[in-house]
Amino acid sequence: MSDDHAVRIGVYPGTFDPVTLGHMDIIRRGAKLVDRLVIGVTTNPSKSPMFTLDERMAMVKRECAGIDTEIHVVAFDALLMTFAEREGASVIIRGLRAVADFEYEYQMAGMNQQINAAIETVFLMADVSLQPIASRLVKEIALFGGPIHKFVSPQVCEDVAERVERIGRKGS
Amino acid sequence: MSDDHAVRIGVYPGTFDPVTLGHMDIIRRGAKLVDRLVIGVTTNPSKSPMFTLDERMAMVKRECAGIDTEIHVVAFDALLMTFAEREGASVIIRGLRAVADFEYEYQMAGMNQQINAAIETVFLMADVSLQPIASRLVKEIALFGGPIHKFVSPQVCEDVAERVERIGRKGS
Amino acid sequence: MSDDHAVRIGVYPGTFDPVTLGHMDIIRRGAKLVDRLVIGVTTNPSKSPMFTLDERMAMVKRECAGIDTEIHVVAFDALLMTFAEREGASVIIRGLRAVADFEYEYQMAGMNQQINAAIETVFLMADVSLQPIASRLVKEIALFGGPIHKFVSPQVCEDVAERVERIGRKGS
Amino acid sequence: MSDDHAVRIGVYPGTFDPVTLGHMDIIRRGAKLVDRLVIGVTTNPSKSPMFTLDERMAMVKRECAGIDTEIHVVAFDALLMTFAEREGASVIIRGLRAVADFEYEYQMAGMNQQINAAIETVFLMADVSLQPIASRLVKEIALFGGPIHKFVSPQVCEDVAERVERIGRKGS
Amino acid sequence: MSDDHAVRIGVYPGTFDPVTLGHMDIIRRGAKLVDRLVIGVTTNPSKSPMFTLDERMAMVKRECAGIDTEIHVVAFDALLMTFAEREGASVIIRGLRAVADFEYEYQMAGMNQQINAAIETVFLMADVSLQPIASRLVKEIALFGGPIHKFVSPQVCEDVAERVERIGRKGS
Amino acid sequence: MSDDHAVRIGVYPGTFDPVTLGHMDIIRRGAKLVDRLVIGVTTNPSKSPMFTLDERMAMVKRECAGIDTEIHVVAFDALLMTFAEREGASVIIRGLRAVADFEYEYQMAGMNQQINAAIETVFLMADVSLQPIASRLVKEIALFGGPIHKFVSPQVCEDVAERVERIGRKGS
Repeated sequence: MSDDHAVRIGVYPGTFDPVTLGHMDIIRRGAKLVDRLVIGVTTNPSKSPMFTLDERMAMVKRECAGIDTEIHVVAFDALLMTFAEREGASVIIRGLRAVADFEYEYQMAGMNQQINAAIETVFLMADVSLQPIASRLVKEIALFGGPIHKFVSPQVCEDVAERVERIGRKGS
Repeated sequence: MSDDHAVRIGVYPGTFDPVTLGHMDIIRRGAKLVDRLVIGVTTNPSKSPMFTLDERMAMVKRECAGIDTEIHVVAFDALLMTFAEREGASVIIRGLRAVADFEYEYQMAGMNQQINAAIETVFLMADVSLQPIASRLVKEIALFGGPIHKFVSPQVCEDVAERVERIGRKGS
Repeated sequence: MSDDHAVRIGVYPGTFDPVTLGHMDIIRRGAKLVDRLVIGVTTNPSKSPMFTLDERMAMVKRECAGIDTEIHVVAFDALLMTFAEREGASVIIRGLRAVADFEYEYQMAGMNQQINAAIETVFLMADVSLQPIASRLVKEIALFGGPIHKFVSPQVCEDVAERVERIGRKGS
Repeated sequence: MSDDHAVRIGVYPGTFDPVTLGHMDIIRRGAKLVDRLVIGVTTNPSKSPMFTLDERMAMVKRECAGIDTEIHVVAFDALLMTFAEREGASVIIRGLRAVADFEYEYQMAGMNQQINAAIETVFLMADVSLQPIASRLVKEIALFGGPIHKFVSPQVCEDVAERVERIGRKGS
Repeated sequence: MSDDHAVRIGVYPGTFDPVTLGHMDIIRRGAKLVDRLVIGVTTNPSKSPMFTLDERMAMVKRECAGIDTEIHVVAFDALLMTFAEREGASVIIRGLRAVADFEYEYQMAGMNQQINAAIETVFLMADVSLQPIASRLVKEIALFGGPIHKFVSPQVCEDVAERVERIGRKGS
Repeated sequence: MSDDHAVRIGVYPGTFDPVTLGHMDIIRRGAKLVDRLVIGVTTNPSKSPMFTLDERMAMVKRECAGIDTEIHVVAFDALLMTFAEREGASVIIRGLRAVADFEYEYQMAGMNQQINAAIETVFLMADVSLQPIASRLVKEIALFGGPIHKFVSPQVCEDVAERVERIGRKGS
């Protein structure tokens, strides 16, 4: 950084349906790398999320309370690079869990390098004990009535339970 | 970073025997993430390097001229985490090329998280056209008289040629 | 196992649409590890299977005739861990074919460890000559009129042919 | 090849929706291995392509002008092995980008070996700078109004722009 | 297992230089699968271990105290399959950490299937928080004076410290 | 290939210490792709092979008898690309077994593309039942007195037995 005191801005994109302890771990790690962290919550209409965009944004904001970096939670329905440019970001933050992640991220990062070489993708590794957590599996476990308290915060745990109550449990 | 104007320091460790265009690409990318980048050159006595520690440090310094971030080139013969602590770093920078890299890095980063949770390992991806470059293969190609100008800078190319001249070419 | 003569029960879950030689190889290997093997056939309504649950259960039962371990074939529409608990299993058996499998299995097994640490996931490797067999590709080959006799038993081969006859072949 | 002057025929299958610089690189490499290269364009009705079969075939033909090997562009709606047999091919050509590709290709090639051992699958590696290009991401970038000129030829770039114009851009 | 009350014996081979928490986790998991677990400690003369065979065997025995399955700790200098046959084992137990492990294990297991089809290789997954632990890195950290108490038991920690004291620390 | 009747030459490099059924499978597959197949046997002084260069070359020649393509067995002690150029090859043939192979091959092929873009690396997949075979493990099994007849031809089996007899068996 040649420019003294320039504000370093990072973007962390995701669906956060719901936000897991794994996401929160990456957010805390990413927050140490930048002066402002913009958490981009995708509108993601194709995936029929368990929580609405507003609910997911509120959930992420609530979980981020207490983090000592400036955090913005912003909806986005655009190309990631366009979103990053609009937010003035120089860094995109991605969490890596395992090889499967890496392959996809590698392809995305490679194409993003060609679109805007000035924005750098940095990969962070979640705490090993949090790595197998996937939102998709958290929802599946909850829908079948399984316990999810090791994968999400107590409050997200309640949010999910209440939602499962409303839409009905699966299975026998 | 809540603390305004705190200096963010990163460490990029390696053997750099010789420094390749792939290394330089990661250095340039890493330099944008921090206020000071400390390039740690391992003394690495077990690997019988082509260039001495002093030669490798000089080579890296020369190649980094013109980078607009404060760069320190420092020898180290210690645990990476100990070195990072001594340099006051909050970030360790690693380049990722492919899955093989990722696996090893994952294991290292996982153990390093346990040793000092305050120092974050960040992974950067080299430009795709530079990803297959490995110092080991560069040396092997040069020792057999093959061309290496697409893998290293013109001046490193000359350094390697002069060294191969001195120690003798391999093969028929 | 400190408890002499305790019955060791394993669960092997799958869709078995249809059951392949690869599945049967894992079943035979798994049967040697436990005193009772419960084959859990998922009801799996979202995947629109070629065979109904009853057909798939009958097919698996028929193919398992002659295996010298107690085998139960049971439908399930629940979380895998809940199913394993109900069946009194201490072991979940999974077949590994390749890295792609491993990644997904790793994530599942990691989350399952957190849900019930008393139930162990064990991975078995199918005979190398049977490893590339995937039910999905078997069906695709059959639907296009290709030969599948190297991937399934003669009787499953007939079952699939009869089904393809009924629903009509694809392609030109 | 013991048979002098026998014509060696290869098949390169794909959806080409649209054809990318990565595809063209594999086509040029594959064309050097055979006397006739048959490019099989899948009818692929399930994927709801951006371009019709006729448009995709015309696009591939246009891009292949100037390649110095006999090229046929042929629609196919059959099992790959059946298609290769009909075309008299002894070789199926596949591009490899990364490990994720490799896994899937490995499974396909393993099953294809069992179906017809006389037809060989050969894997080629695209130029490293073209490896991260995926048709799916090209379309997504274009639909969100991002630049795709580094991933496809100028004329395909225009084709895609015109199509996006017609069906409407996504995002905000 | 058709044979009621037959004793199921498993073999878990390794160098255990030193035994880590990751090894102990696999031993505890494996012990639940069999009636007798034979831990095979390789004489391994080529690797110049930190601890002698006798020291490593004593260390493993001490750490296994309290496990509720019959455990034998046995030196071996033979082919793994020969060792398993001698011990009357029907199961070989291997820990999986990540893809790199899996690849090597896959090759070994594939060849072992051909040598003796009656002995099954089963793969277990260590607790996720213990997965990045590698004996090699534990020793390297200890030799450079770093902390290893999160990777080995308190007593192994002392054993290693005492050994490092004797052979001298590395680094500056 | 625009040039009618031009001779297509391929190079297949290796150590062949000893040549396995896996190697022979790739040789037979590769022989169908070219008019002349040059098998390059590396002098490889650093690896201390079980068989001398002359023995390995004689072994490969003997095993290739009966293959209906022109086969040359040639020693080489040069850069692979230099060797391929000297032999007039347009194709380098490599066998793929699993992901571990792929990673290394990917790096090599990527650098070789930069050295000579006119020579194409093609990857072939061995028969799935032959994929786990590695020369290194074949030798280890034989040195410990294990059976290797499923991994090499009967005559190579005898060659290895005779060599193990001479240098002495390992283990107890």
